[in-house]
Amino acid sequence: MSMQRIGSTIQLDHGSGGRATHELVQELFAAAFNNKFLLEMNDSALVEVEGGQLAMTTDSYVVDPIVFPGGNIGSLAVHGTVNDICMRGARPLYLTAGFILEEGLALKTLCEIVAGMAEAARKAKVLIVAGDTKVVPKGKADKIFINTAGIGIVPPGIKVGGHNARPGDAVLINGTIGDHGMAIMCKREGLAFENEIRSDSSSLNELVEAMLKSCPHINVLRDPTRGGVATALNEIAQQSKVGIHLEEDALPIRDDVAGACEILGLDPLYVANEGKVLVCLPAQAVEGVLQAMRHHPLGRASCKIGEVVADEAGRVMMKTRIGGLRLVDMLRGEQLPRIC
Amino acid sequence: MSMQRIGSTIQLDHGSGGRATHELVQELFAAAFNNKFLLEMNDSALVEVEGGQLAMTTDSYVVDPIVFPGGNIGSLAVHGTVNDICMRGARPLYLTAGFILEEGLALKTLCEIVAGMAEAARKAKVLIVAGDTKVVPKGKADKIFINTAGIGIVPPGIKVGGHNARPGDAVLINGTIGDHGMAIMCKREGLAFENEIRSDSSSLNELVEAMLKSCPHINVLRDPTRGGVATALNEIAQQSKVGIHLEEDALPIRDDVAGACEILGLDPLYVANEGKVLVCLPAQAVEGVLQAMRHHPLGRASCKIGEVVADEAGRVMMKTRIGGLRLVDMLRGEQLPRIC
Repeated sequence: MSMQRIGSTIQLDHGSGGRATHELVQELFAAAFNNKFLLEMNDSALVEVEGGQLAMTTDSYVVDPIVFPGGNIGSLAVHGTVNDICMRGARPLYLTAGFILEEGLALKTLCEIVAGMAEAARKAKVLIVAGDTKVVPKGKADKIFINTAGIGIVPPGIKVGGHNARPGDAVLINGTIGDHGMAIMCKREGLAFENEIRSDSSSLNELVEAMLKSCPHINVLRDPTRGGVATALNEIAQQSKVGIHLEEDALPIRDDVAGACEILGLDPLYVANEGKVLVCLPAQAVEGVLQAMRHHPLGRASCKIGEVVADEAGRVMMKTRIGGLRLVDMLRGEQLPRIC
Repeated sequence: MSMQRIGSTIQLDHGSGGRATHELVQELFAAAFNNKFLLEMNDSALVEVEGGQLAMTTDSYVVDPIVFPGGNIGSLAVHGTVNDICMRGARPLYLTAGFILEEGLALKTLCEIVAGMAEAARKAKVLIVAGDTKVVPKGKADKIFINTAGIGIVPPGIKVGGHNARPGDAVLINGTIGDHGMAIMCKREGLAFENEIRSDSSSLNELVEAMLKSCPHINVLRDPTRGGVATALNEIAQQSKVGIHLEEDALPIRDDVAGACEILGLDPLYVANEGKVLVCLPAQAVEGVLQAMRHHPLGRASCKIGEVVADEAGRVMMKTRIGGLRLVDMLRGEQLPRIC
């Protein structure tokens, strides 16, 4: 990339829509996200899709710090939107990217973030086909905010949604919980452990594809991001009008994550994940799907953590280690601002 | 809307992803944007599309002030993205909305903005099918930023794009230039005129549909937003490798807009519009299309402002009132930060 014309920091004129914007777009964004749709430089990109059901989603990312162990705000912005699409069983295809930059942002930092986005898009096999850049005066935003929106195609016959959990379904997860949130918090608070806690931020579409190949009748997929596993399961319980029973002993939590949570007074059940998926599926499909999950690098530690029940509709209960049963409510208040 | 549970200002927990977020989403956003896709409350919305060419776009809106004569940041966020879609001749269908809110934002203000969005979406016949809300601590953003992304279907046979201008094409516009930018600047600077300058912010899809019905062979449609008419025409000239000749005398500018530009030292050719479209089309189609445009409320003052020429490829020249010919360059620097 030839960045000399751009300068070493982002200035207001990079958001003017004029010459400086064009230079930034061509030399940074278009070069990094390089694809024919984006390179056309029209008001919108024209992409080809088959007819049928399209999954469509958006998320804005305001994570602080913008670079963290295991990723940055750019890779996170791709992972999060790819995952929201594949939580409907859809194959993610095209993303858009909207940048809000604070005047004075170092170009080096922006390049690092854009490189993270481009790499994440490449790995997930999605194209960033349209974008937008705004610059606001110093102090009117915090370094960089990114919005990604995206679309994907739902293969015929797939019916995945938060309202489809059925009593008797097993609840699975593809690995340890709380890794993303605690990676962010440890970086923000300057907490150091023997082994650095890394975010689990990653695109789950390949894993989900393997799971649906093993069992096309998966009922629910949901990524437990903000609000954590507890909030995501509450959403499913309410949408499907079922109860969910969790086994405390079955919840996979890394020792260092559990330790960091204890120090900060946080419950890992409410801590955000960015590479995890909760699955509700018929009991008879569990073994096959678990095998498919464990076969994938992002599913090695997959396990069953609970089941869907008919009573206590709309509520999540946890069988504790000492044999009690306690209510697991949706997140109240805000324990971890700007986690994604 | 029952807003009592939400409180009078936005707090950090409205962006937690937990209970407060759910209440805000259900009682404000879902109620205002009311449609079956959004109400499903899944990670992404499932919409039906015919196969074929899909136009896809995104824009973030950071306009300051957030409420201005003729609109607010919410209506602007719908108009801008609807327009970017129909600039490819596509019929806009579905939008997503990502909100970044500053802690402390008055709920009343947010309600007004969301109502503006909902009304703009209703008028443009598009549905807001997916959304996201983030809240950042006070001082880390400026009140509210909105991203909208959207998709639309390109009818068969339509081939509109910035690279399609041909020598001999006429250049049309649907009305006066600079209205949006000067409405924002006058509000921001506290300039008052006898008649308030109102933004032209509006959705152009109905107008564009009427134009394409009159002439399916329109070559270029472009909305001259940031950077104004001068920058948009430069983009077309470069993409199509043609020259463009403008007639200064033909440029429609309101007297008060011209006056405000003079006071602020701005050139209306570089001032943003949000309800205008530049059109390049074969000369023989001009009369029919102008008639169709003038028939529509947003096209009453449509006129021809110039033509596409073979020489001076990539450049825009203006025949001035005194008979000279001057180069009209792309916007350099930033004359109007946070205009959209």
